[in-house]
Parts: sequence; structure tokens; C-alpha cells
Amino acid sequence: MFRHTAKFCLIAAVFAASPSYAQDANVSHDAEYYILQAQHAEQWAADDAAVDEALAQFRESNAGNPPNIVSILIDDLGFGDMGIPELNAIRGYSTPNINDFSDEAMRMVRMYTEPSCTPTRVAQMTGRLPVRMGMGDTAVDIAGFGLPGSEVILPELLKQAGYATSHIGKWHMGDVAESWAMNQGFDYAQMAVHQQGQLTIFNDDAIKEQVSVGIQDYDDAYTLDDWFRPDASAMMTVIEGDAGGPIREVRMESGERWNAAKYDEMNQAFQDKTMEELERLAQGDTPFFLQYWPMIPLDNTRAGRSGPESVNGGLYVDKMQLLDEWLGDLFASMEELGVAENTVVVLMGDNGHFTKYSPQSGFTPMIFRGGKADTTEGGVRVDAFMRWPGMIEADGLLNSIIHVSDLYTTLARFAGADEFIPRDRLIDGVDQSASLLFADEAKGRRDHIIIYSADVPKAIVKDQLKLKLPPKGENPIIAKFYDLYRDTREEYPVSTEVGAWGGQEFVRILGRHLARKEKYPDGPPAFGVPYEGIENIRPETQAAVDAFLVKQQSPKQ
Amino acid sequence: MFRHTAKFCLIAAVFAASPSYAQDANVSHDAEYYILQAQHAEQWAADDAAVDEALAQFRESNAGNPPNIVSILIDDLGFGDMGIPELNAIRGYSTPNINDFSDEAMRMVRMYTEPSCTPTRVAQMTGRLPVRMGMGDTAVDIAGFGLPGSEVILPELLKQAGYATSHIGKWHMGDVAESWAMNQGFDYAQMAVHQQGQLTIFNDDAIKEQVSVGIQDYDDAYTLDDWFRPDASAMMTVIEGDAGGPIREVRMESGERWNAAKYDEMNQAFQDKTMEELERLAQGDTPFFLQYWPMIPLDNTRAGRSGPESVNGGLYVDKMQLLDEWLGDLFASMEELGVAENTVVVLMGDNGHFTKYSPQSGFTPMIFRGGKADTTEGGVRVDAFMRWPGMIEADGLLNSIIHVSDLYTTLARFAGADEFIPRDRLIDGVDQSASLLFADEAKGRRDHIIIYSADVPKAIVKDQLKLKLPPKGENPIIAKFYDLYRDTREEYPVSTEVGAWGGQEFVRILGRHLARKEKYPDGPPAFGVPYEGIENIRPETQAAVDAFLVKQQSPKQ
Repeated sequence: MFRHTAKFCLIAAVFAASPSYAQDANVSHDAEYYILQAQHAEQWAADDAAVDEALAQFRESNAGNPPNIVSILIDDLGFGDMGIPELNAIRGYSTPNINDFSDEAMRMVRMYTEPSCTPTRVAQMTGRLPVRMGMGDTAVDIAGFGLPGSEVILPELLKQAGYATSHIGKWHMGDVAESWAMNQGFDYAQMAVHQQGQLTIFNDDAIKEQVSVGIQDYDDAYTLDDWFRPDASAMMTVIEGDAGGPIREVRMESGERWNAAKYDEMNQAFQDKTMEELERLAQGDTPFFLQYWPMIPLDNTRAGRSGPESVNGGLYVDKMQLLDEWLGDLFASMEELGVAENTVVVLMGDNGHFTKYSPQSGFTPMIFRGGKADTTEGGVRVDAFMRWPGMIEADGLLNSIIHVSDLYTTLARFAGADEFIPRDRLIDGVDQSASLLFADEAKGRRDHIIIYSADVPKAIVKDQLKLKLPPKGENPIIAKFYDLYRDTREEYPVSTEVGAWGGQEFVRILGRHLARKEKYPDGPPAFGVPYEGIENIRPETQAAVDAFLVKQQSPKQ
Repeated sequence: MFRHTAKFCLIAAVFAASPSYAQDANVSHDAEYYILQAQHAEQWAADDAAVDEALAQFRESNAGNPPNIVSILIDDLGFGDMGIPELNAIRGYSTPNINDFSDEAMRMVRMYTEPSCTPTRVAQMTGRLPVRMGMGDTAVDIAGFGLPGSEVILPELLKQAGYATSHIGKWHMGDVAESWAMNQGFDYAQMAVHQQGQLTIFNDDAIKEQVSVGIQDYDDAYTLDDWFRPDASAMMTVIEGDAGGPIREVRMESGERWNAAKYDEMNQAFQDKTMEELERLAQGDTPFFLQYWPMIPLDNTRAGRSGPESVNGGLYVDKMQLLDEWLGDLFASMEELGVAENTVVVLMGDNGHFTKYSPQSGFTPMIFRGGKADTTEGGVRVDAFMRWPGMIEADGLLNSIIHVSDLYTTLARFAGADEFIPRDRLIDGVDQSASLLFADEAKGRRDHIIIYSADVPKAIVKDQLKLKLPPKGENPIIAKFYDLYRDTREEYPVSTEVGAWGGQEFVRILGRHLARKEKYPDGPPAFGVPYEGIENIRPETQAAVDAFLVKQQSPKQ
């Protein structure tokens, strides 16, 4: 073991010297990465050479091309909702197509996301913690900000490597033009600008069913501020367009009201478009990146249902079964089109259950504690699978820690696009190619996660230990430690065992993470006028934007 | 739908008429059974005929014999601890042999036990709710009562059908002679009289490690009552004997102290004896019933450990891995001896996790709420598998409700011993043969459980609904209902949805259950002098018995 000073000198040396192995050269990572690199550089270099060889062999067998990539990101699912028939059974539903898929895929058992939709999607797209560009929060209404155009997102890397790119479904990374998929690197996008709050909670059927109260069904006798309540039907719904081309709203005409039927129609259209895009892309000359981020299983009304389709009968669970059918169609189509074998498919949840709608949703947290927006494991541990026939072990388990941002770096590597990862900023994602390709947990390049809620670090996981960071002003000596192997639900703090040693080490981890921000400071999101550049903006939408701008510019000081 | 009166007339008629189908004739069941029979009698008769045919075919292929039966009942495991690799992984351990076994077996996904060791074992042995003979409670020390000899337990049925029978391991159904395995129908038994409290918590190593405090390591300056604290080393440990033959204690000499090493030695001896008995029985001329009820994974000391064997490192988890090895040896031996194919193996837990030792045990409740002694699902839902190659679907799931008492009736049926089920008392177990043999949930004969804690009914499950019975004096209108499909952890009461209808129906279920006790009243356990008839009783054990008897006979009124 090194003494204190010797250890720090070693780390300084690692920082100073450019790592000599190939793929990750000059990408700047967070501090903890270099601690691991100092211990494993030699192994990693050997692994990198083996990864290069495996990828080269694949390309050789695939007419010189890297694999196609399909990303399916499902909203608000907990760990154990997909791919474990026993856990389907005890909850009275089944997802046979997803379960079959999982038998052909590697389960990333310790995939960590961010605690809610926007930040998880940002991390997957940018390879960076959302806090780094002010995208750690989830906006539900017109907000005038979003993902900055200066981020170099995954499809931008892939395009440089020759990929055709399409995005269909949920986007939810901002209502300003520069944030949108077709302006961020996708050749084509059909995307919901906002999220399902607008579309399933504030819609007219939901108001009738009192899913939401006080939005439109209230007595306005005493109302002075007509702008206080959102008119969700006035908000932008689904937009469509090609990169550089015009962008149009496609699901609403002026005067129309959003309702449950329109939500169903939108979801069906996303599915149909995905099938269509898959067919088009599969017939192209280049490898493709197809992103299908469905809005279901989220649904909050009984309107339009013909009856419960599962024994469970929950609102989300029934739609989960529908999504399973749709994904079954997608997987079957991949077979028919001859792209099942040369495509990496990543299927996962984006964060834990939306517990506000438990139990009528049919889902409640189970194995891990908490759900969406919680920084307990139930908020950030999800089902996650990666299928790549012949390259990634079928029906395998990978129990090393992976963060959703690692998909950025890893998929870029698979695509031969890692050289385009920007070198001028900090990249949180690490390259997990070796552990995935060789089904070897010891080849993972991450053993920790810093879990943020918006812009506040709330917890740190290292190995199986989790420290719940105490709020400001609370003595850190009483911070709670959990052993995640022995206590998945974080109900039995074990401070006495690990506090004395671990507390100090964890403080150092956080300290190194924060110190690294001096060189790579967090920045703001992109601010702007909502919906600018949408050709057919509805008058009611324009009025809502105008009201937003007045509110935004009202004196605050 | 029937009107109230018509329905009751029908039920009365069903009660009056002897059911005409074969196997279950004249067995008296609890009230709810007849409600189902009134609705399914025709189907059940057809199923019974098909079961008879399947069993006859098996016997034909097996030299005229019914199958051997092996019962492995593991202490204090929660649902999801065995057979689901993903759930092993997130907790840092693996049970590969059990998982392979589960792939060859039917998982009984909704197996309900009683909330703790003694009552579960009593239910499996007698086919009756433990409350019916005062065995609903778990005694940890010398108690002078146990399972009455008048109970006709499973091996007694099987012996009448020509089986050889052996029991090895935990018994824990009483310290009076008539309760013991070798006096209750087993040809041979080597059994721990009590449980792991005595053997892992009160032992000298555990006292040193402060697992238990105030038992022997206390300042006795003010002690008047030397009998207050148990001397666990004086209690009877393991006894061995043949039916009708002498019974001897085999693990302790006078003057010896119990400790962690002796616990390990005892467990190894149980395993070795099981392997030996399997070999002996497999070479016999008759079908056999071998019961192996291990004491591990329960263990509460670090003494004698060479280090954590799992990544989890918990005290129980490490021993679970050891048990997995042992069971792997057992399954391999069954193959070698040629009895894998003609043997029904039932492997299951006896109740939920012992949460008092969480998280250092390595196990904490996860999917269901609560553990041992709780009447929430976490107390009574367990992993349960049944393997019978060629007869019961491999890697199957059966999601209909099964109670541990149903093993009595069902295994008796498989063995052709159901004609020996006593007709003079109420049998709670129902025959689940059809659902198991035909892998058909709709052929289950139970849709409810009444969950007792000791002699008090605490909850009723019917279909996916669970009513938590309010304590006496609390208005039942606020009783909590849970939808178990949507809420495995019973955290979101749904009274508003089902209370109005369900409350009344559940009160009727309980009413019918209690009314049935007028004809078949609950009886007492067997009372007696502890350890009578053990040849080599140690002087210190005799002294502890004498002290117990004085305490028992001290004036109480």
C-alpha cells in the first residue's frame, strides 16, 4: 500500500501523462476514473486491444460496417419489471416478447440512470452528468430552456462515422429549438416536445376522471390570473422534421383539445413510424441509429379502454403489455429485414416507478426503495438489456456498475465513432466495451456513481456501499451508510461498520468530484423563446408562449 | 347470479351430499372449499380422472411403484432468494445448483406458508392449520408441549402405502416424546429437537460476539433466579433413533458446551447422513420418503469462518452458498443412484427472512413486506419448487394459490396414499395434483388463505385481494385492503375501490371459517414432560427439565 503522499503523486502523474492506450486517449473524465486507471491501466490497455480486434472482426463480417444501433428507452419502470417471468407472475401481467428478448441479451444488472426522465435522456445523449449543463431538472410545462446546441450528442458522433440517424417518440429535453432531436444531430425526428404530464394528466379526459383537479374544472368566479393554470391543449404536442428542414406540429389543429384518444393515436403513430423508419433504414447503404423512446406505458385515464388486458389491470401495466406486443413486432421486423444479427439493441427503463400513480398504475416499488425522483436505488436502478448476437453473451448478467452516460462512450466505441467524442470538456461516460463484449464484470471501468437530484449531489455509491449525503447544516458524522447487497431497500443503516473508514473516503470522493469542476465548471442550459421555428404554431400555443414571456420578464427584484 | 337464500341452499346441499368424484371423497375441508366445489365440481371430477390416469401411467413405467418423495424445507428465506439469477446478482451471491434445479422444476409462485417455523412444518406434516391443535406458536426453549400423537402426519400415510421414511435435520415441533419424527411415523430420524435460537444465538461464541446479551456474560451479583436465563448448552440438541427403538442424544456429552464449531459439525452431519440415507433408501425395494430440513443458512456468529464466501458476506448468505453446494451434491447423487427420474422433490422456504438479524444476515425483505412472524406477504410467501421429471413441467410457473398444507394432500395423492388421509377431522390441505401435473393455474383448488399469527386470524387473502383484519375493538370499516398484484409490499391501501363490496364478503369468509370450528373445534397440543424417553439424557439437561417442571407447577392463581 502507498502512503498518503506517494499515492497522490502517482495520481498526479496519471493525470499529467496522456494515457497511452488507444480508444480513450485524451477524453477527459471525472476524477474517480483516474484512481481506477492508476490501478488498472495495463489491464485496460490489453482489454482495449482485444476490443479493437473483436470490433474489427465484426466489421469484416459485416461488409466493413460497424453495427446498427437501436435504443429503446421506456418511461418509469422499476427494476424487475421486464425479463423475469416470476416477477411478472406475482404482479399479474406478462411481457413475453421482452422476456424472450432478454433471453437473447446481456442484462446490465447494475445499470444506474438519473432519477427522472430529462436528466437520464440527457446523460445518454451527451455522455455527461446533466448537472454539467443545467439539465438535471424535469420541466413539465412551457419553460423556455433546454439542451444546449453546444453539446455533442451521440447521433452527432455516429453521423460523423457514417450513420443514418432517426429519433421517434419522447424527447423531453427542452422546448427551445436548439434542443430538439432534428437540430441536435438526428437526420429525422418525430418527437413529443414535452412529457406525459401534459398528455395524460392535464388532458380533458383526465380532468373529467379527476386524475388532475383544479386545472380546468374549477369555478373561476374569483380568478384573476388566467395564466396561472396551464392549458395543456395549448402546449406544443408532437413535432416532426428533417435536419435543416422545416419543423411542423403534427398531432393538433387549432381549436382541437387533447384527450385520451389523441394520446392513443399519438402512441400508435410513434409505433407505426418506428416500424416504417426501421424498414427504410434497413434498406439504406449505411449503418443506422434508430432511437425509439415510447411514451407508454405511462397512461392515466380509463377513457377509451375496452377493459383491463392484464390480470393486474393497472393503467400502466395494461399499456406495458401493449408495448410488449409492439416491441415484439419491432423485433420480428428486425428479423424479417435481416438486421437482427448486425444490430446492437439497448432496451431499458429511464428511472424508477412513478409512485404518485401507484397503485392504480399497477406498478409499485418492490426490490429497491422509492421511485422516480428519489435518489434511493428505486429511483435510479432499472432493467437494462443489450443484445448483439454473436458479440454479446445471450442471457448473460453483468453485475458491475454502469451509468446511463456510459452508453454514449460505449456505443460510440462500437460504432467506431469514439474519435469524435469531444476532447474539450469533461465526459462522465466511460467505455464499458470490454466488460460487455467479454461478459466480464472485472473489466468494467466504473465502481461508483454520484447521484444528483437536480443540481444537488444526494448520494454516492462505491462498490456495494451507499452513502446518503447529509443536507447542508447536518453533521456528516451521522450520515447514513447502506450495504446494497445486504439491504436493497436501504432500510438498515450500517454506519457502525463502515462509517469510521468509509465516511472519510466518501468525503474524498465527493471532494475530488467537486474539485474537478474547477477545471470543467458546470454551465447553464440553453435559454430561448419556446417553440421558435415551428412553422404551423397554433394561435392558442402562440398565446401561451406570449403569456410565458410576460411572466418570465416580470420584475423579480 | 343466485339470490342470497338460493345460494345458501346450494351450499348446504353440497355439504350434505358426499362428493361423488374419487380421490377426495369424504375428506372434510374448510368451508371455503365447498364454495369452490359448488362452482367447479364437474371440472374437478374430470381433472381427477385425468390425474388418476397420469399417476397410473407413471406407476406402470416405474415397476408399479409410486414416486419417491424428497422434501427439502429451508429456514427463513424470502421470496426471490432462490432460482432467479438476477436477484442473486443484485445481492452479491449465487446458488447455481438450486438455480439449475429450479430450471427443471415447477415454481409455485404463490406458495403460502405459515409465518414461522413450527406452524409451517406442522401444516406440511398434518395437512391442517396449526391452530387446530394449538401449534401456531414457536417455542424457543424447554416448553413441555408439542405435536400430538393423534395427528396423522404425512409419513404415516406414506408408510401405509408401502414407503420407507426418514427425517433428517430440523424438527422443532415439540420437546415431548410423542411429537418427535421417529414417534410420528418416520422409520428413522436424526433431528434437532429445538431450533437455531438455542444453537446459534445462545451458544458460547454468540455470547462472546454479543449476538445475545445478558444470557451468560452478566454480573450475577444481584441474581436470585438462576432459572431465569436459559442455559442453552443444557437443552437437548440432536436426537437420533428408529421408530420403536431407543432414542439417544448424539451431539453432546455431559460437561460439553455448545458453540459455533459444534453447530457446523451438526450441520455437516445432517448433510452426510442425508447423503447416506439417500443411498440406503435408493437401494431399497420400496418407494421412499426422505425429508431433509437443514438448519443452515441460519447462523449468527463469525466464529470459525475462514472469511466471507460470497461478495455479500452476510452470515446467512454465506451459509446459503454452502447449502447450495450441499444440495448440488444431493441432486448429483440422485442422478448417480438412478432416482432423479422417479422422485418428486419439493424444495422451499418455511417462512420469510428473520429480519431481526438483517442486514448482517445478508438477507432483507425485498419484494414482499415483512419477514418471519409477520402476516404481511413477506412473512408467508416463499420460494417453492416441485420437480418430477416428465410429470411436472420443467421451468414452469404456477401462479395459483397453494398453501403449505396442500403438500400433505397432494403428495399423498401422488403416492397413492390419499385413501389413508383421516376422515374424522378437518383437513385444510386441498389436492393440487391437477394444477401441478397439467401446469394449469385454472385447475388449482384454492383461491384464498386465512393467515393466522399463533391462534389469531390476522389477514385473509382471496384472489389478489388481501384484507388486514382489524384488531378487536377497531371498527372494521377502516380495515385495510391491498391489491397484491399492484402492491406486493402492502403499502397502498385501496379500500375506496374494494372496501364497500369486499369488506362484507371477507367478513363472510371469516364467518364461515369460524362457524366450521363448531363441528371441528380447535384442540390443544400434547403436553408432557420434556425429553422423556431419551436414554442418555445429560445430568445438566435433567436439571433444566426439573427446573422447568417446578416453574410450570408454581401457583398461578
